[in-house]
Amino acid sequence: MFARIDHTGVAVEDLDAAIALYEGSFGMRLVHRETVESQGVEAVLLDVGENHVELLRPLGPDTPVGRFLASRGPGLHHVAYQTPDIARALDGLRAAGVRLIDETPRIGIRGSSVAFLHPAASGGVLTEIVQPSKEH
Amino acid sequence: MFARIDHTGVAVEDLDAAIALYEGSFGMRLVHRETVESQGVEAVLLDVGENHVELLRPLGPDTPVGRFLASRGPGLHHVAYQTPDIARALDGLRAAGVRLIDETPRIGIRGSSVAFLHPAASGGVLTEIVQPSKEH
Repeated sequence: MFARIDHTGVAVEDLDAAIALYEGSFGMRLVHRETVESQGVEAVLLDVGENHVELLRPLGPDTPVGRFLASRGPGLHHVAYQTPDIARALDGLRAAGVRLIDETPRIGIRGSSVAFLHPAASGGVLTEIVQPSKEH
Repeated sequence: MFARIDHTGVAVEDLDAAIALYEGSFGMRLVHRETVESQGVEAVLLDVGENHVELLRPLGPDTPVGRFLASRGPGLHHVAYQTPDIARALDGLRAAGVRLIDETPRIGIRGSSVAFLHPAASGGVLTEIVQPSKEH
C-alpha cells in the first residue's frame, strides 16, 4: 500500500531558524517553498534521499498548526506515507476500518494528492497519505 | 550527510493494537522485535519501502518513553536519519554547533550504531542518527 515515508511534518515557530538547521547543519537541500492557504501554513520541503522533511509555519494562531504550536510547542506534527494510487489506498484503509479525516483526496503541497487519517484511529499519530504529482 | 529517513519512532501504550494497525491495516511488514533494555523499550520494526516505522512500548513508567507517554500520550516520539558513517556525521554536526545527547555512538536496535541530538537544539524534534549494521 505504501512505497516509502514521503515526509515527516515539523511544526516550527521560526521558519528561517528551522531552515538554517535543516539546510545548514543537516545538509538537506531545500527544494520547494509554498504557502498552502487551505491548510493555513507556509511550508518548506527539503530532500533527504527520496524522503522529505516538511517544515510548517502557521499563517496564524487559529489554524491547525497554530493550535498545535500553542498546545504542544514546536516539534513533530505528522508523518506522511507515499502511495502510487491514493484512491486505492483510501479504499484499502476504509475496508480495514481506519477512520479518515479526508474521505476523498485533496490537493496538497507541490500539486500532490493527499488525505489525512484520524489520529484517534492511528495511535495518536496524525497520519497523511500522499500521491505525488507526476512531476515529482 | 543523511541518506534517507531511517525511521519514525512512535510511542505506544498497546503494542499489539499498534501492530494490528501498522501490519494489518497499513500493510507494513513486521521485520524485527527486540527488547532494548538500555533504552527501556520493547521495540518493533516494520518496513515501509527502504524506511521503517519503529513502535516503542516502554518497559516501565520511569523510562524516557514511559515519561513521554505520561506527559503527551501516544504518538510520534522521534525521527531518525540514516547515515553511512555515523562518526563523520557526528563530527559534522559538532562542527555546525548542534548540541548532542550522545557524543559518541552507542548500540541501538538490530545492531545499529545510533546517537541522539538534543531536541532543544533541533526545534523540539528528538532527532536520532543511525548507521545500520552491515547486515541491514
